[in-house]
Amino acid sequence: MQQLMVEIPQRQYPIFVADGLLADTQQLRRILQQYIPGRQVAIVTNDVVAPIYLDVVVAALDGLQVDVMQMADGEAEKNLQVYQQTMDFLLNARHNRSTCLLALGGGVVGDLCGFVAATFQRGVDFIQIPTTLLAQVDSSVGGKTAVNHPQGKNMIGAFHQPVAVLADTATLATLPAREYAAGLAEVVKYGVIEDADFFEFLEQHSEELLAKDGAVLSEVILRCCTIKADVVSADERERGKRAILNYGHTFGHGIEKLCGYGQWLHGEAVAIGMVMAAQLSTQVAGLEESVVRRLIALLTRLGLPTELDRASRQVVTVDAMMDVMGLDKKVVDGRLRFIVASELGQVQVRDDIEAGIVRDVLNRC
Amino acid sequence: MQQLMVEIPQRQYPIFVADGLLADTQQLRRILQQYIPGRQVAIVTNDVVAPIYLDVVVAALDGLQVDVMQMADGEAEKNLQVYQQTMDFLLNARHNRSTCLLALGGGVVGDLCGFVAATFQRGVDFIQIPTTLLAQVDSSVGGKTAVNHPQGKNMIGAFHQPVAVLADTATLATLPAREYAAGLAEVVKYGVIEDADFFEFLEQHSEELLAKDGAVLSEVILRCCTIKADVVSADERERGKRAILNYGHTFGHGIEKLCGYGQWLHGEAVAIGMVMAAQLSTQVAGLEESVVRRLIALLTRLGLPTELDRASRQVVTVDAMMDVMGLDKKVVDGRLRFIVASELGQVQVRDDIEAGIVRDVLNRC
Repeated sequence: MQQLMVEIPQRQYPIFVADGLLADTQQLRRILQQYIPGRQVAIVTNDVVAPIYLDVVVAALDGLQVDVMQMADGEAEKNLQVYQQTMDFLLNARHNRSTCLLALGGGVVGDLCGFVAATFQRGVDFIQIPTTLLAQVDSSVGGKTAVNHPQGKNMIGAFHQPVAVLADTATLATLPAREYAAGLAEVVKYGVIEDADFFEFLEQHSEELLAKDGAVLSEVILRCCTIKADVVSADERERGKRAILNYGHTFGHGIEKLCGYGQWLHGEAVAIGMVMAAQLSTQVAGLEESVVRRLIALLTRLGLPTELDRASRQVVTVDAMMDVMGLDKKVVDGRLRFIVASELGQVQVRDDIEAGIVRDVLNRC
Repeated sequence: MQQLMVEIPQRQYPIFVADGLLADTQQLRRILQQYIPGRQVAIVTNDVVAPIYLDVVVAALDGLQVDVMQMADGEAEKNLQVYQQTMDFLLNARHNRSTCLLALGGGVVGDLCGFVAATFQRGVDFIQIPTTLLAQVDSSVGGKTAVNHPQGKNMIGAFHQPVAVLADTATLATLPAREYAAGLAEVVKYGVIEDADFFEFLEQHSEELLAKDGAVLSEVILRCCTIKADVVSADERERGKRAILNYGHTFGHGIEKLCGYGQWLHGEAVAIGMVMAAQLSTQVAGLEESVVRRLIALLTRLGLPTELDRASRQVVTVDAMMDVMGLDKKVVDGRLRFIVASELGQVQVRDDIEAGIVRDVLNRC
């Protein structure tokens, strides 16, 4: 088992990464009971993950009051209504301020459970057990929690760090191919924004990644979490550097929103968004065309889309994108903010890009 | 104008106290524009306060995008539904992360607006302009924000500090007598928990307080905010000392909940709760009976209830209170936690009090 400490001002928490972590009840119990502050635990999970992993987690929590909130699967469930249902559930089961929430599932479960933990009785502890690649390399690190609003993704939320994260690479074996690939999009993002060597590593190991090779996956998850933890440690509240983690996301969120959440997986929309951001980078940051081609090639090899399909182009028009991006959180005082790359591993936050250039790039994509 | 700086780890914010602060547009503009980070402001207020003060506040915000969310009046509005409506309102008016919320009203407006500010796009700035005594001495200091849940008060919320608080004692002139008295209950609380001299000051100046004397009110508000700020600075997240601010509140919340929110004002329930807590203190902390008599006398002089009326006694039974207090946030792992006084200005947090003693005290009250 490998361990990474995430250092946040005034606080730190561990990320445990291992192959088969959930299968070892003794070890799981030892880790969990170290981070649960009281005698109550509420597991938030969904109806896809629960049949596979709920029993083993519950077995590791013997002696505690354990209640289970089981959501339906899917991004559409990440809304204020399910948030309220979870609050009702906790209060009906008489959970108090020393309870501990446990998010068992992917990013939707983690984001929703985290936001409940951030705001239940003004904040309680929570532990993340991410079971998707996307959650393991992205949403379980950094303390961003949220639910969606019809007007936009993650519009309602809070910063709330978990007390521990447990990532078991074996859970990826049961992950559908499309969701697995979507997680790889965020993996590629880390290479683009911070680490050209890592990007190259991914190019060289794309076969092992597609085969879900345990050793390569552990290496990749730790590398991604390390990069993200460094960025987050420097800027927990997203006042500055943290914004680079949103590379490809301004476009990606626009695509998700216009097509309706659920049409594209988040990682798929980010993959297309990263290509758009790379095209923009060639216009405003001097990125070489060859890097765009390498990015498209790598994403394609990993089973990801790099442009909109015909049906999506009907709704993701240039005008619609410009309009919907105006509502995105990354807007500062009416100026669109974009993350652009000057070379692999080197990005910058820019709010001086003219709308006309963005429109041109969208037109070409 | 007087100013107090509240020091919180990594942050500080000012409380301005003056008689007629809102009437002086120039001064109001100068203060507000110093603390508004961007070009957008959303005022959250209610239909009682808006007709009196909205125009003068809007006049001080010229040059900015100003949108107004007007709630109905009353504690019943402090719920997740109004929270969601406020989120809808902000997103429909295209407010972004650099917006600033402005809470213009009493504790309900402040708590709800504060919770929206804490969670809108994961947190935006907000300014408090409290227009009730309760909000000026209590809810606008300390960063507690929340909405109620049918299962209990303030069950959903967050810690989120304002960037500035502006308290105008002149706003108390239009406050209904009953609400004004309810605010005085929290004023008395500060004397009991931290400052015997201040308690004596209140005994000596009860006439001026009832007459809403500007000089005495300014002194009282500053003293209360100073005490609260000191306690909060030492313990922002209510892990320890901050709990003493809840003196009388475990009982008070139980009364409010059993009678239905709105039957008793919060301060009235706290007044009754403080007498119950004082009775309990004579049993378990050696408080002299004479102090209980002084407390009852002062509260009575200030127009506050000190015991339940006949109708309330029908629903606030001993069994019902014991049951409902079990759900209160101040419960740690199934143990009831009470704040008790050993003498005026000296309180302690206790979680070793036997249920039987609590029942006896409730029986006598």
